[in-house]
Amino acid sequence: MRWTQFFIPTIKETPLGTEAISHKLLLRAGLVQMLTSGVYSYLPLGLRALRKVEKIINEEMNAIGARELFLTCLQPMDLWKKTGRDETLKDVMIRFEDKKGRQMCLGPTHEEAITDLVKNHIQSYKQLPLVLYQIQTKFRDEMRPRFGIVRACEFIMKDAYSFDRDKEGLEKNYQLMYSAYQKIFARCGLDVVIVGADSGAMGGDISHEYMVPAEIGEDEVLVCPACGHALGISEAKEGQACPKCKKEKLKKKPAIEIGHIFQLGTKYSKALDVSFLDEKGKKQIVIMGCYGIGVSRLLATIIEKNNDEGGIIWPKEITPFDAEILPLQVSDKDILQLAYDYEKELSQSGIDVLTDDREESPGKKFNDADLIGIPYRIMIGKRMFAEGKVEIKDRRTGEVIVVAKEDAVKKMKEILK
Amino acid sequence: MRWTQFFIPTIKETPLGTEAISHKLLLRAGLVQMLTSGVYSYLPLGLRALRKVEKIINEEMNAIGARELFLTCLQPMDLWKKTGRDETLKDVMIRFEDKKGRQMCLGPTHEEAITDLVKNHIQSYKQLPLVLYQIQTKFRDEMRPRFGIVRACEFIMKDAYSFDRDKEGLEKNYQLMYSAYQKIFARCGLDVVIVGADSGAMGGDISHEYMVPAEIGEDEVLVCPACGHALGISEAKEGQACPKCKKEKLKKKPAIEIGHIFQLGTKYSKALDVSFLDEKGKKQIVIMGCYGIGVSRLLATIIEKNNDEGGIIWPKEITPFDAEILPLQVSDKDILQLAYDYEKELSQSGIDVLTDDREESPGKKFNDADLIGIPYRIMIGKRMFAEGKVEIKDRRTGEVIVVAKEDAVKKMKEILK
Repeated sequence: MRWTQFFIPTIKETPLGTEAISHKLLLRAGLVQMLTSGVYSYLPLGLRALRKVEKIINEEMNAIGARELFLTCLQPMDLWKKTGRDETLKDVMIRFEDKKGRQMCLGPTHEEAITDLVKNHIQSYKQLPLVLYQIQTKFRDEMRPRFGIVRACEFIMKDAYSFDRDKEGLEKNYQLMYSAYQKIFARCGLDVVIVGADSGAMGGDISHEYMVPAEIGEDEVLVCPACGHALGISEAKEGQACPKCKKEKLKKKPAIEIGHIFQLGTKYSKALDVSFLDEKGKKQIVIMGCYGIGVSRLLATIIEKNNDEGGIIWPKEITPFDAEILPLQVSDKDILQLAYDYEKELSQSGIDVLTDDREESPGKKFNDADLIGIPYRIMIGKRMFAEGKVEIKDRRTGEVIVVAKEDAVKKMKEILK
Repeated sequence: MRWTQFFIPTIKETPLGTEAISHKLLLRAGLVQMLTSGVYSYLPLGLRALRKVEKIINEEMNAIGARELFLTCLQPMDLWKKTGRDETLKDVMIRFEDKKGRQMCLGPTHEEAITDLVKNHIQSYKQLPLVLYQIQTKFRDEMRPRFGIVRACEFIMKDAYSFDRDKEGLEKNYQLMYSAYQKIFARCGLDVVIVGADSGAMGGDISHEYMVPAEIGEDEVLVCPACGHALGISEAKEGQACPKCKKEKLKKKPAIEIGHIFQLGTKYSKALDVSFLDEKGKKQIVIMGCYGIGVSRLLATIIEKNNDEGGIIWPKEITPFDAEILPLQVSDKDILQLAYDYEKELSQSGIDVLTDDREESPGKKFNDADLIGIPYRIMIGKRMFAEGKVEIKDRRTGEVIVVAKEDAVKKMKEILK
């Protein structure tokens, strides 16, 4: 992809009213744009990164047998009345009456909708277990949207739902999800703290939160200054602190919640009467679990944890492009041609390449390359080029190696392998 | 993929209140489910087909240099006031006031949002042309939702927007889109009629609609009974009927509008003041085009045109699976094992296979296979199997060929090539 044929509106100045590093960088690198407070559009570069996150989630969900579907934003309030959550979620729900006089809302979550969906299709124990998930836009009437896409009025979530015949089935699916979440966050390059959590408005007994310690976090974890081990506030209270460190020395640190899994039990299946017949022909209530990941928030968290003063440093699996090529003097036909040759060869090897073919100063190009954070770049500058050489730079370490121009593609392939 | 590990809740009876064939089949084949009138969820099989349609659109949009982004559902009414469309689209807009007292709506379309988005990023003629698109959920407060996902309150659209410095640029992009649309619909297996159209609420001079003649269509085209050539109502009125056929003999036929492209001109860019500096440093207003495809409606139209009394007959590029394997007696371990072997071999060749591993009667499996409409299937039945043979059936022609069981994978690969 050529920069001039893409759309990456980078911004030099720090936008006003931004507190979080991720928020500043999402805007400055041309990844997102605010339409109105709490409402953000994804620009092409941001969408590419978002799609990478979604791809990882898709792969790990499919690997544990979860099947993707796509529920709706619009939901009838009638459905929410059946579980009483028209009241408990009142404050965050966006509601309206449509032309036909129906009371509707924009889904802040989908337990009711999915339970209603499977209701008519589960008759027998033979159809269980069933795990369904979606990646879908959700809505919250947020009084104080904050930190860009971390706490927004419109955001993207992955939400999965398990349906089992008994508690053992639920526990098995819960464990599968628990591990899948660890894989997902590891592939996103994040160290997470998993803490037992209060189930809140979701109902059910057991739940776990996936937290990433970070300055802008609105939740908290306890961190041991000695060993770095972190754990949940409630766990420590219950005397389950990590053995090596003394409870009184644990320090509270802010953390971002990026995932939450729940053993729901029968709260929703009872309210909506989702049952099946067991081997003996006896009616049983389906047992449910639900499993959420804040997808847009996850993208922000990745940036929050992977940056330096120059900009973003994308982890390998999330980066919108694998490599960037910087011809520094595009007016020099030979330099530009070499960039195009690299682009072609790398693309043919299945490597996603961005070529900064703009007529801009080398300084501007370096700054923008740091800002958008592609992990590796090939720089073709006049002086080196005259000696038959180019430079390859590692965005994270800053390390630069000089290679003969004939060897650059081979070297880049080795690095990216 | 195994049927028992997927989620395809087929329905034998025709659902009540369905007029359109596509609506009946979408529900019966377990592709979509209604949450409330005009609001449909995509079940896993339906989502796979939808993603195939989206993939074709992505490929053809990328091929003409359009860049994908992702705008928002929530939009502030302030923006719509600037173009006056808060009034012209009043009847179909879903509006509400949020907790902060903001007047908001759910986007029925995105001309205002995209124009506002590019506004701050276009300064120079060097940044033009620019073509951006998204595949996104849209909303209409539809008084009479009809025909399932053909006219719904929540639906998926591809909308593209071009930004040019002059009329020549617009015409070039318009022509690129015009041709890309022909390719998209051809790949979807549809014969379209392209007609000059009334631009309606979009503004601008020139526009074209892509129509598919179909019984449930709410628009109309004129068809020549002699040669089958079809054209738009307004074109015929202006005496531009096809030369071979007499105007008075042309017959009105209903048609579904699946695409609409517009040369907008400066309606939106003027209202929102999107300008650039030309070579002489003179301020110029950007010239726009917009280009829509009803993605969910397109899926319904494909089914509307590809079915028989047994069910859906998917076109090659849209089918959720390339082939289906039907072991007719799964209690016979050798038959089931052969099905698994086929599944494995075909999958390894990159062919998407669905194996109906349910303990159901052959009759039920045949009926469901016809209903969900995978183009080719391998049937493994007891009698044939004893003779070392299996059958391959073409869903569209009904043709059945008998092959030695060792040859089935090779034959299927040949067919699908």
